[in-house]
Amino acid sequence: MPPRPRTALLIQNIGVNALPNDQKDTLDREFLDDFEILSQFGATPGGGVERQAATDADAEQRHWLRGWLTEAGFTTHYDEIGNQYGLLELVPGAPYVLTGSHLDSQPLAGRYDGAYGVLASAHACRRIGRERDENFQPRYNLAVVNWFNEEGSRFKPSMLGSGVATGKLSLGDALTTTDVHGTTVRSALEATGTVGSTRSPATVAYAEIHIEQGRVLEQAETTIGLVEATWAARKYRYTVTGEQSHTGSTVMDDRKDALYGASLIIAAAREIVDEFAPGALHTSVSELYVQPNSPVVVAREVEFLLDLRSEDQSVIEAAEARLREISESTGAKARVGVECRCEHSWSVLPYQPEGVALAAEVAKDLELTSRRIMTIAGHDSTNLKDVVMTIMLFVPSVAGISHNEAEFTRDKDLCAGVDMLTGVLRRLCADGLEAPPTVWHATVLS
Amino acid sequence: MPPRPRTALLIQNIGVNALPNDQKDTLDREFLDDFEILSQFGATPGGGVERQAATDADAEQRHWLRGWLTEAGFTTHYDEIGNQYGLLELVPGAPYVLTGSHLDSQPLAGRYDGAYGVLASAHACRRIGRERDENFQPRYNLAVVNWFNEEGSRFKPSMLGSGVATGKLSLGDALTTTDVHGTTVRSALEATGTVGSTRSPATVAYAEIHIEQGRVLEQAETTIGLVEATWAARKYRYTVTGEQSHTGSTVMDDRKDALYGASLIIAAAREIVDEFAPGALHTSVSELYVQPNSPVVVAREVEFLLDLRSEDQSVIEAAEARLREISESTGAKARVGVECRCEHSWSVLPYQPEGVALAAEVAKDLELTSRRIMTIAGHDSTNLKDVVMTIMLFVPSVAGISHNEAEFTRDKDLCAGVDMLTGVLRRLCADGLEAPPTVWHATVLS
Repeated sequence: MPPRPRTALLIQNIGVNALPNDQKDTLDREFLDDFEILSQFGATPGGGVERQAATDADAEQRHWLRGWLTEAGFTTHYDEIGNQYGLLELVPGAPYVLTGSHLDSQPLAGRYDGAYGVLASAHACRRIGRERDENFQPRYNLAVVNWFNEEGSRFKPSMLGSGVATGKLSLGDALTTTDVHGTTVRSALEATGTVGSTRSPATVAYAEIHIEQGRVLEQAETTIGLVEATWAARKYRYTVTGEQSHTGSTVMDDRKDALYGASLIIAAAREIVDEFAPGALHTSVSELYVQPNSPVVVAREVEFLLDLRSEDQSVIEAAEARLREISESTGAKARVGVECRCEHSWSVLPYQPEGVALAAEVAKDLELTSRRIMTIAGHDSTNLKDVVMTIMLFVPSVAGISHNEAEFTRDKDLCAGVDMLTGVLRRLCADGLEAPPTVWHATVLS
Repeated sequence: MPPRPRTALLIQNIGVNALPNDQKDTLDREFLDDFEILSQFGATPGGGVERQAATDADAEQRHWLRGWLTEAGFTTHYDEIGNQYGLLELVPGAPYVLTGSHLDSQPLAGRYDGAYGVLASAHACRRIGRERDENFQPRYNLAVVNWFNEEGSRFKPSMLGSGVATGKLSLGDALTTTDVHGTTVRSALEATGTVGSTRSPATVAYAEIHIEQGRVLEQAETTIGLVEATWAARKYRYTVTGEQSHTGSTVMDDRKDALYGASLIIAAAREIVDEFAPGALHTSVSELYVQPNSPVVVAREVEFLLDLRSEDQSVIEAAEARLREISESTGAKARVGVECRCEHSWSVLPYQPEGVALAAEVAKDLELTSRRIMTIAGHDSTNLKDVVMTIMLFVPSVAGISHNEAEFTRDKDLCAGVDMLTGVLRRLCADGLEAPPTVWHATVLS
């Protein structure tokens, strides 16, 4: 156990920045050392990680986390969709404040995305568990969660584990989802021994910390982002249908080239951005499949995913209208069929304002610079905020680089984030919530 | 043995159209029945076939062909790159007239491409073997060949088997070529038991018949195409290099999106066709790979194959210059690197004029309509013509459809083609070649 802080009151109100320097250094060192260990799972030569959901590298880090949590006094289990929990009981029988993120990664990814949030949660909970004294009167317990398959690179959709836990996706659909090789989620989870049957605990609040994956905090020289809302997003699956023919001998006017049609749409999707105010619209196409993908056969079908994001719902609507025009003109120009299905859509959705206010107070107490921010990317907290009081925090990303081995957040920001999360959890755990709060019980749809 | 024809002279000069109707009907029926059997290997629900090189379906049809040839009196063997031969000795110790095509197919392909030529060759040789009499004095033997991996869909490059046999490609390189799953040609051939060590026989001439895969013959209402040259072609491998980043949160101006860059080039490659005279230039991109191909990661790399074809070399040169401009402007516009490597190139290359003239005479004797034509697609004969006297023949393709399950050639054209090939082989075998002809011995580069 670390030595007692100077006064219990300080711990509760302004947290770890009031610790003696050597004690703060020890906590930071412990966190950074563990983060270094965690970053070795699925490490890539370029300094990143590759540990897609339920691969060997993902399983290894989950086993390691289970060991870490057990040693720190947490009780661990998996639920039916492979979400991993560590429970730390402070108040026997009370519901939990849940905190976490995801350990799975994109291919050739950075080491911070998701993993930082899970480890920060584990360390923050352990600190609170160790530091309790007569002036810290917890009303709730603490639980860490590592959500399954947040990234969506191996299994779609993304945020699959938190989607099932919050009843947005049925368990049956999620378990039968396959990767490109036809492996189901069920068999991948069973093969890695990372699935169970105990659901998430009764929960009064959820907190998540994540790297920003943008440049707002860095440019504003601010340490903590207080996420107040998600950008609106709309995700589409396009199927462009042409006709197989010989790439050499078929007369050009006779061709129905699905890849030509797809290319017209992909290029146009990038270019409509310039029809809106700077920064108002983000568009992307990054996953695409060609059939039959042979050097001498004109493509009969190209399938790709396209997404639109904006902080302004009317921009999304206008961009969608433009995409409709583009699909129509492409169909005529390339003599192909264009089918577009909206698969996922969300509006600008706020996080609970009282949570943002609570976090702002904690930042102030800790003397950490903070500002309100929106998240463009989706996070597991995007799902959780719809069922329970949720606080989402950001720390800066150098140059905003993410989903890239060069993703980087400075040690001092990582450590400040752990302090911040610790402060937020302590508040949530003690007196920070309205009484009685809404308690969320996982309702898994079969 | 079929009954003797009315006069041996007729057989030699004007061939099977002088046969009694019932005998001609029997020969046609035999061919069409065998073609029906052959079309069952790798048959697809849409009426086509899928039997890529050295897959189970390809191995099965090769075993079937070996049985057919053996029963018909041919001696069969495979060479070191899996080309399959059937030798019919008419003149002990003499060199061979070789004839064939390929049985491997594209994915979801038609049943005629390649397979028609192999079976037509086998039937034509068997007819000649059965029909010889005192007025038919063969100077050479006959051999059927089924070249390995002509299509290039599973293993690249295309025309791999004939490329090795003609010394254009080293055996070592060919055997270590891998498919997208990393399986080598060597292990695929060994696994299917379709590889040996005996090379192609000493050869004085090669003949191949193929469906046109275009509309020229159909539109001209002509039965036989006498191929006099190949279109020029140039094939490039493009690598567009961007940078992984988050598809949601990364500011648009910060992105280096390899798929956007690739789309600009693919669309432009189609559109430069319209800068040339109608029909003068064919361009195509039909095989493409995206890395990491995740829905939420901007593509760091896109690789694709682009080809240019024309009957006019100067058009190819001008198109290549345009592609260079397009690559440059795309690099700047999409902030990506564009690398283009020419991997394969050939000029307008003639088949031997004396072969075209010989075939024209045979068509005239057989009272089959014929015309000179160029081939846009490459064929194994494209390789063979550079080492030995080669005759390439076409029969019509309905609507020019090819590399598609709907590929179709009418029975009467199929049968006329077998008659035509029989006539050509008989001439080559007897007195149709200058004496002494150039004898080609396979020189396999290790």
